[in-house]
Amino acid sequence: MSTGAGADRRIERSRAAITAAAIDLFTAHGFAGTNIDDVADRAGVSKKTIYNVFGGKEQLFRDIVEQAIQTAEGYSADTAAALTRVPEVEPNLRDAVVQLAQAVLAGQVIPIRRLLIAEVERFPELAQRYYSRAPGLVMRTLATTLARLAALGKLDVADADVAAEQLAFLVLGPGMDRALFRASGSRVDTTTEIEARANIAFDAFLAIYRH
Amino acid sequence: MSTGAGADRRIERSRAAITAAAIDLFTAHGFAGTNIDDVADRAGVSKKTIYNVFGGKEQLFRDIVEQAIQTAEGYSADTAAALTRVPEVEPNLRDAVVQLAQAVLAGQVIPIRRLLIAEVERFPELAQRYYSRAPGLVMRTLATTLARLAALGKLDVADADVAAEQLAFLVLGPGMDRALFRASGSRVDTTTEIEARANIAFDAFLAIYRH
Repeated sequence: MSTGAGADRRIERSRAAITAAAIDLFTAHGFAGTNIDDVADRAGVSKKTIYNVFGGKEQLFRDIVEQAIQTAEGYSADTAAALTRVPEVEPNLRDAVVQLAQAVLAGQVIPIRRLLIAEVERFPELAQRYYSRAPGLVMRTLATTLARLAALGKLDVADADVAAEQLAFLVLGPGMDRALFRASGSRVDTTTEIEARANIAFDAFLAIYRH
Repeated sequence: MSTGAGADRRIERSRAAITAAAIDLFTAHGFAGTNIDDVADRAGVSKKTIYNVFGGKEQLFRDIVEQAIQTAEGYSADTAAALTRVPEVEPNLRDAVVQLAQAVLAGQVIPIRRLLIAEVERFPELAQRYYSRAPGLVMRTLATTLARLAALGKLDVADADVAAEQLAFLVLGPGMDRALFRASGSRVDTTTEIEARANIAFDAFLAIYRH
């Protein structure tokens, strides 16, 4: 039994090492540009171990994307929960929006977006699931929040879906677009820059929808 | 001499066939997922012809991206010229913005954007050149146009660069983002939908910056 537990721990360590190596390589080289030998080398395991644990390259790819979707979904659910409790436009909605910008633009969102965009022809259903479960969830919650604040008379919003989309793209659009075209290792926006730009974008949003 | 002209024409035809095949395959499968054999098959030429005409796979990739950048730059220059002549916010700037949305969202912009985003780690300088020469050119011209209309007292714009970015991402952001995550062959926005959404986005922009 202790041997069984030791084997389980070894498999768990291998799985974690393989996953970390696969994330690095797939995001740097794409699906076709990554081979199992390189993943095995980087993870310090044998090729056979990868096939035993994951089945193969496509299954490994689906597995790391699924993990990334779950992480994104978990974060989006946290954002959604925070938005649901927002009582006022100032300072609460503004703060939530600035935090969203920090999480999206300084976090792990860009590499997974880039990978899914790159592989959309090969894995169209993964791209669609990500889109619905992560950014889609944030957008739907933003819309609900704006509708609620409008019902309370705190914003003048007629179409909450349109307003949510405008808020999201004013705040996240330019930074996300620039980041997608920037290789890893090149200069990224600082948290101070992200905060300043998010506040300017939020001011613009209020100019449209404040009473 | 007629033999020389015939050979030139054959090379020209081969070059065009190879380019068309390479665009299809690179945009569908990425750089690593495309091989010269497949390009040769699809173009109906020999592998040797591709090596003779282009040098190799990387050169072929650079060549088709360069062509796409030139096309995008040519279109961006046309847009820039049209914007430079815009005399009024309504209907001229609105019309120009709706046309921009049609060109970007219903045209050939999405596949080249997706390809460059996918290959940004391998070809970072191509992504940067595209960004500066196509969307960058449009954005700079939008800023100049908004500054000019502000100087004429037709818009209340303090920071024309920020306002241009806001206008561009209100109008193009949501549709571009959705399209990047959508495989070819799936439903695309109709020109009627694009026009309606661009008008709503332009109304939001005017709510921020109209006197």
